Amino acid sequence: MDNQQILLTKRPTGLIDASTTTLVSTPRPTCGEGEALIKVAMLSIDPTIRTWMNDAPGYLPPIAIGEVVRGSGTGVVVESRSERYQVGDVVFGMTGWQEWVLATKDNSFSVLPTGMGLDLATVMNVLGVTGVTAYFGLLEIGRLKEGDVVVVSGAAGATGSVVGQIAKARGASKVIGVAGGPEKCAEVVEYYGFDACLDYRADNLARRLHEVAPKGVDLYFDNVGGDVLDAVLGSLAMHGRVVLCGAISQYNETGERGGLRNTSMLIVRRGRMEGFIILDFASRFLEAQIELATMVQAGTLRHREHVVEGLASAPDALNLLFSGGNHGKTLVRVDESVQLG
Amino acid sequence: MDNQQILLTKRPTGLIDASTTTLVSTPRPTCGEGEALIKVAMLSIDPTIRTWMNDAPGYLPPIAIGEVVRGSGTGVVVESRSERYQVGDVVFGMTGWQEWVLATKDNSFSVLPTGMGLDLATVMNVLGVTGVTAYFGLLEIGRLKEGDVVVVSGAAGATGSVVGQIAKARGASKVIGVAGGPEKCAEVVEYYGFDACLDYRADNLARRLHEVAPKGVDLYFDNVGGDVLDAVLGSLAMHGRVVLCGAISQYNETGERGGLRNTSMLIVRRGRMEGFIILDFASRFLEAQIELATMVQAGTLRHREHVVEGLASAPDALNLLFSGGNHGKTLVRVDESVQLG
Repeated sequence: MDNQQILLTKRPTGLIDASTTTLVSTPRPTCGEGEALIKVAMLSIDPTIRTWMNDAPGYLPPIAIGEVVRGSGTGVVVESRSERYQVGDVVFGMTGWQEWVLATKDNSFSVLPTGMGLDLATVMNVLGVTGVTAYFGLLEIGRLKEGDVVVVSGAAGATGSVVGQIAKARGASKVIGVAGGPEKCAEVVEYYGFDACLDYRADNLARRLHEVAPKGVDLYFDNVGGDVLDAVLGSLAMHGRVVLCGAISQYNETGERGGLRNTSMLIVRRGRMEGFIILDFASRFLEAQIELATMVQAGTLRHREHVVEGLASAPDALNLLFSGGNHGKTLVRVDESVQLG
Repeated sequence: MDNQQILLTKRPTGLIDASTTTLVSTPRPTCGEGEALIKVAMLSIDPTIRTWMNDAPGYLPPIAIGEVVRGSGTGVVVESRSERYQVGDVVFGMTGWQEWVLATKDNSFSVLPTGMGLDLATVMNVLGVTGVTAYFGLLEIGRLKEGDVVVVSGAAGATGSVVGQIAKARGASKVIGVAGGPEKCAEVVEYYGFDACLDYRADNLARRLHEVAPKGVDLYFDNVGGDVLDAVLGSLAMHGRVVLCGAISQYNETGERGGLRNTSMLIVRRGRMEGFIILDFASRFLEAQIELATMVQAGTLRHREHVVEGLASAPDALNLLFSGGNHGKTLVRVDESVQLG
């Protein structure tokens, strides 16, 4: 009884390639007392996984060489020697990039509710880490106020698209996306309903930002860092808030980075820039998930999943996040037989 | 009856020079109904004056070409047609770089209390803009907590030296200064009582910071910006706070600046970086001034004034702030006959 696993075999510089990971076949783990055996159904492919591959300080230790690539996902319980899990439960947690995983004392999973009328991919997108990140980042760190002019980068992505829609629903006066290329920008406005979207690949983002937000930006939700962050800092409104969620433009950088030049605008405009890690809000996820599920069921939160087939495709799926080749939440389907009842 | 004035005649690049300002003699202003005539006694020389000379967006409009250089100072009321001021009152406000100024509806002054047993230079230092900036920046923006490891740049300066001493008095576990050169570092430790002081001109500030604050920096009060700010961001403790007070290292920059590279530490460490302008706290100055005056009278707040003689020396005095040639609060004495009773 095999377990296909993807191990980290070499620390990447830049995008990951064939030498970064290796697909191996190992014996399926056996379920000890207090544990449960989980058949992995779907992996959540998130930019943060790339940061764990570096040997650099982060909010979690780096993935060790020879270790299964870390990542969250869903699966179904096929054997349980724990009171927490029943056979047939669909669960969410740190599955890693593999076919089988044990729920243990040190690696616990949450049992997904059934009867919501939402499929597994939707749940992993909107109710998953990216959805709750949007919710707490916008409301708790950014402290969205009615009438705010809001800018969101990575606006066509799983987190950014949800940020913009919550902001609109909660009374932002204008929601402006930043995304890569005209196709994504059109999607952000037409599909996700933002008021405008700026293509960061086109010239002079700073000037165009000033045109579309002449009174300045009250709240910026930053998923990308780098030059886009610098441009928005230059347009910060009085008492503007910058939520640092991620810095996807930086994760594969190999050369010297340019650095931020406009942080003094935080003084001039009495601004606040604050980072967060969604794990700190773990005890409050349900609050976000109930609101997000309600919005999906009411049809007021649009979402899109980009499902890639097969465990072996996980490394390529990760690179899609950085090339911009994905649309919406990127997921890898490991076992198509698992469905959420 | 003349009024010597220093006008801005050319916008500087880098440090100001002889072409930046011109000393002129104009008629002394006459006191209209509701106004008071003030003989200027002493000017407060602050880094922010340099930023007002640029034609760039700031928290106040740039000083216009041909206008008297803007700046705060003290003086004595010699004629009054206003109920707010009595002849003989020593007052503080926006005097500008000149010998005589009118208190008007649009340019009001506060009357300094007498009987504190403090001389004018001390009052302009500790109870002036730099002192209250230290107080509100540390406590309101930085939200100092007992046990915090605190780092302060510009530690030998008028604001930085007060920040460190308030932090010690309020229970910081360690207060580390950053200053330019061994002489200033010695002053910060021996005279102002900081636990340690790092010379930013010596090699590898980041490594030395890590040695002296191995568990990280809980609160950083930044007066300088640039590379020092970047180095401290790299040592930020979990939930660390960065107070952006000024960026003196940047005010005279003419070339391409390097920019901040470590802002992603705000994500990893869930940090907050926030700027402020002391004018926003104007209605609460008295609260700070009472505490600071009490500390000075009790001998628990040490301070030093660097007094330069004569209005014509004001431009050179401003440059001292950037060359590091000053010790403590820099003041220009315009009229030595004025004393605080």
